[in-house]
Amino acid sequence: MRNILIIGAGRSATSLIQYLLDKSDKEELFITIGDLSIQNSQKLIKEHPNARAILLDVFNDIQRRQAIEGSDLVISMLPARYHIEVANDCIEFCKHLVTASYISEEMAALNHKAKAKGLVFMNEIGLDPGIDHMSAMQVIDRIRAKGGKMLLFESFTGGLIAPESDDNLWHYKFTWNPRNVVLAGQGGAAEFIQEGTYKYIPYHRLFRRTEFLDIEGHGRFEAYANRNSLKYRSVYGLKDILTLYRGTIRRVGFSKAWNMFVQLGMTDDSYTIPDSENLSYRNFVNMFLPYSPTDSVELKLRHNLKIDQDDLMWGKLVELDIFNADKKIGIKNATPAMALQKILMDKWTLQKDDKDMIVMYHKFGYELDGEKKQIDSHMVIKGDNQVHTAMAKTVGLPVAIAALKILNEEITTYGVQLPISKAVYEPILKEMENYGIEFVERATTYLGYNPDNVAG
Amino acid sequence: MRNILIIGAGRSATSLIQYLLDKSDKEELFITIGDLSIQNSQKLIKEHPNARAILLDVFNDIQRRQAIEGSDLVISMLPARYHIEVANDCIEFCKHLVTASYISEEMAALNHKAKAKGLVFMNEIGLDPGIDHMSAMQVIDRIRAKGGKMLLFESFTGGLIAPESDDNLWHYKFTWNPRNVVLAGQGGAAEFIQEGTYKYIPYHRLFRRTEFLDIEGHGRFEAYANRNSLKYRSVYGLKDILTLYRGTIRRVGFSKAWNMFVQLGMTDDSYTIPDSENLSYRNFVNMFLPYSPTDSVELKLRHNLKIDQDDLMWGKLVELDIFNADKKIGIKNATPAMALQKILMDKWTLQKDDKDMIVMYHKFGYELDGEKKQIDSHMVIKGDNQVHTAMAKTVGLPVAIAALKILNEEITTYGVQLPISKAVYEPILKEMENYGIEFVERATTYLGYNPDNVAG
Repeated sequence: MRNILIIGAGRSATSLIQYLLDKSDKEELFITIGDLSIQNSQKLIKEHPNARAILLDVFNDIQRRQAIEGSDLVISMLPARYHIEVANDCIEFCKHLVTASYISEEMAALNHKAKAKGLVFMNEIGLDPGIDHMSAMQVIDRIRAKGGKMLLFESFTGGLIAPESDDNLWHYKFTWNPRNVVLAGQGGAAEFIQEGTYKYIPYHRLFRRTEFLDIEGHGRFEAYANRNSLKYRSVYGLKDILTLYRGTIRRVGFSKAWNMFVQLGMTDDSYTIPDSENLSYRNFVNMFLPYSPTDSVELKLRHNLKIDQDDLMWGKLVELDIFNADKKIGIKNATPAMALQKILMDKWTLQKDDKDMIVMYHKFGYELDGEKKQIDSHMVIKGDNQVHTAMAKTVGLPVAIAALKILNEEITTYGVQLPISKAVYEPILKEMENYGIEFVERATTYLGYNPDNVAG
Repeated sequence: MRNILIIGAGRSATSLIQYLLDKSDKEELFITIGDLSIQNSQKLIKEHPNARAILLDVFNDIQRRQAIEGSDLVISMLPARYHIEVANDCIEFCKHLVTASYISEEMAALNHKAKAKGLVFMNEIGLDPGIDHMSAMQVIDRIRAKGGKMLLFESFTGGLIAPESDDNLWHYKFTWNPRNVVLAGQGGAAEFIQEGTYKYIPYHRLFRRTEFLDIEGHGRFEAYANRNSLKYRSVYGLKDILTLYRGTIRRVGFSKAWNMFVQLGMTDDSYTIPDSENLSYRNFVNMFLPYSPTDSVELKLRHNLKIDQDDLMWGKLVELDIFNADKKIGIKNATPAMALQKILMDKWTLQKDDKDMIVMYHKFGYELDGEKKQIDSHMVIKGDNQVHTAMAKTVGLPVAIAALKILNEEITTYGVQLPISKAVYEPILKEMENYGIEFVERATTYLGYNPDNVAG
């Protein structure tokens, strides 16, 4: 038996564990799941003979080192900042490592050691980052192999609620970490390139500079810009590309409504509210509006944000019960962002039968034999249920598939890496098709960055 | 002769030095001015027999310590972050110290040592901080002495262009550090209290939440909120006050127009622009607007900020020549804020005969013998010329007056302090009247925080 150690048995580990358990007899795998809660892991194992749950606190050096030493390959599903302890042990004990997180500077610094020991340290192999890298590089490499020159790359991803479970005016529920959703876009201007010109969008305008995406069979979506599109120039080797843009997908109307919270200042995470525990939802809203001895919070907000009588945005606020004077935030030393998250979680938490949905969309513009061409590709994946969500499948399956292929020496690219080389992404994407995770491609007219198809 | 050492001979030191030179025969003062440029100091001394200029680099320990040791009192007009070296030497050599800067934590930590040695370390004794503290505490102490209870304190200050030199649509020129003006309001939400409720304004809304101030004989002004009003609760002993608000004064219309830059993202100082040196003003503007193969920068900006055809805001932009495709930013690695500052300095730099103007306005609401009352007070000071500006007079004179009174032992409050005790502010405010720096007070109806006088 080959021993695989999985550290962290959170919501994103379900499909990953299921895949490895299903293969465990044939592939002679024994899976150890280390987590702060044994019960968490046991629920996922369901008494499978080829697996066990152990208590593992990543900050307990003895526990961690013992577990890693006894394995052949380690998968860390912890938050990114905890990987480095695990990675150092993997170097020491000569174990392969797989994570779904962005490569940190500390992780990158282990590249030479990992190479010298013949170890694969595969990172960024979940959904985003992960499937985005692999599916983009597959098309880009194909275009280049034909002699094409890349002109445009736009890429969009969103974690959404499936249409059959969409029962609110925002067409959104939290299918992933709610805090990340509340803080999305903060920390600096979004930067990207369109037709060779640098463009910058400050946070407070981000949700009003969205673009539409129409996906055949799935309708219309919108996307707002991610902060860091420019780093993909070096990652994907797109040095002189004219247009490079990455964005986050939402259903139409979400961003304009979300902008209300941004404008009011409710997404601020930099200060705490006095006596936030006892603050009512209504008084939370009123904090961001001018004082008046007479006027209602409702009218002050309508005036402040210029919301007309018949604007659907108003219904979105009312649906959240944000003007309720009896409901309390109930969190000590809450920042505005934490208070807003509390209010949203009342309404946007996934219900028992809700299904989530992942949408990814790429546009590749290129020049080949003097002709300008474009390929669009997209992937839409729905969750099976609350355990095998679309998020768990799209994050966990590439991790699991990569882990097994590393163990089987089908992937032998040593060192600290992300999945952008053909030898890595080709076999992984191929196998993911068996699980319904695949892209639909179509050739279309190249217009450059020109979403309204304006004649030049 | 008593030796006064002034470190830093910048624009704010002119009236300070003049005051001390004028008093030097009668008071037996010898003034040493230490600066990185001897010429700067010589221009201010004009061969006065009771003064000399020396080269002083505050980071040169030998120069600095020698100069401080030879003095009886030190005035530091350096930027706040450089005071601490000077302050440590003053403790060692037993010298009084005067600065116009906010008390840093390091400075505050010297309190016990200063007290033990019988030294006055007077800080925050310029305009703002300085005259604001003294003029506010004088009225607050008077109200309290009568048995009154403070209900409301609002305080506003602005450095403006005098009406006779006001020749642009913004009614503004740089009379002080332009960088501070461009970055004003950044770094977190403005927080204050109105009628017992905490209020927060995020940066991107700050310049649209202004209030008007009418000052008799001077017309209408507007004010936007400062970030840190709440700290004045402890500084002025206003613990349970219902309304506490501090703001910055501008001429009407400035803030709404300035908000255009904020909305576009032009005041961002957190990233640098690629090849900023060769960027034209026009392309700088275009960075913050969506790409279009056909539309002009002008129309994109009008659309983006919803500026009507006949809106005066447009004229304000045109006046700045911000759409010029030939003028270059000309600064390497410029942030957007640095680029914007460059564009504004073309138009907003004080001309030879321009005069500046300082406006300060306080509102004091209180309850006395069961009756609610209000006192408003204001000060308007114009500069004499480009040397003795209103800013130089209002910053420099309180510093100079305090320094002489400390030397003459009229002020003997030892320790690290700001001028909020009666023994300090009373004699200083009294003498400033001789220089035309005084407040006009009037009693008015108390309405609470209720700028539109709405009936409850």
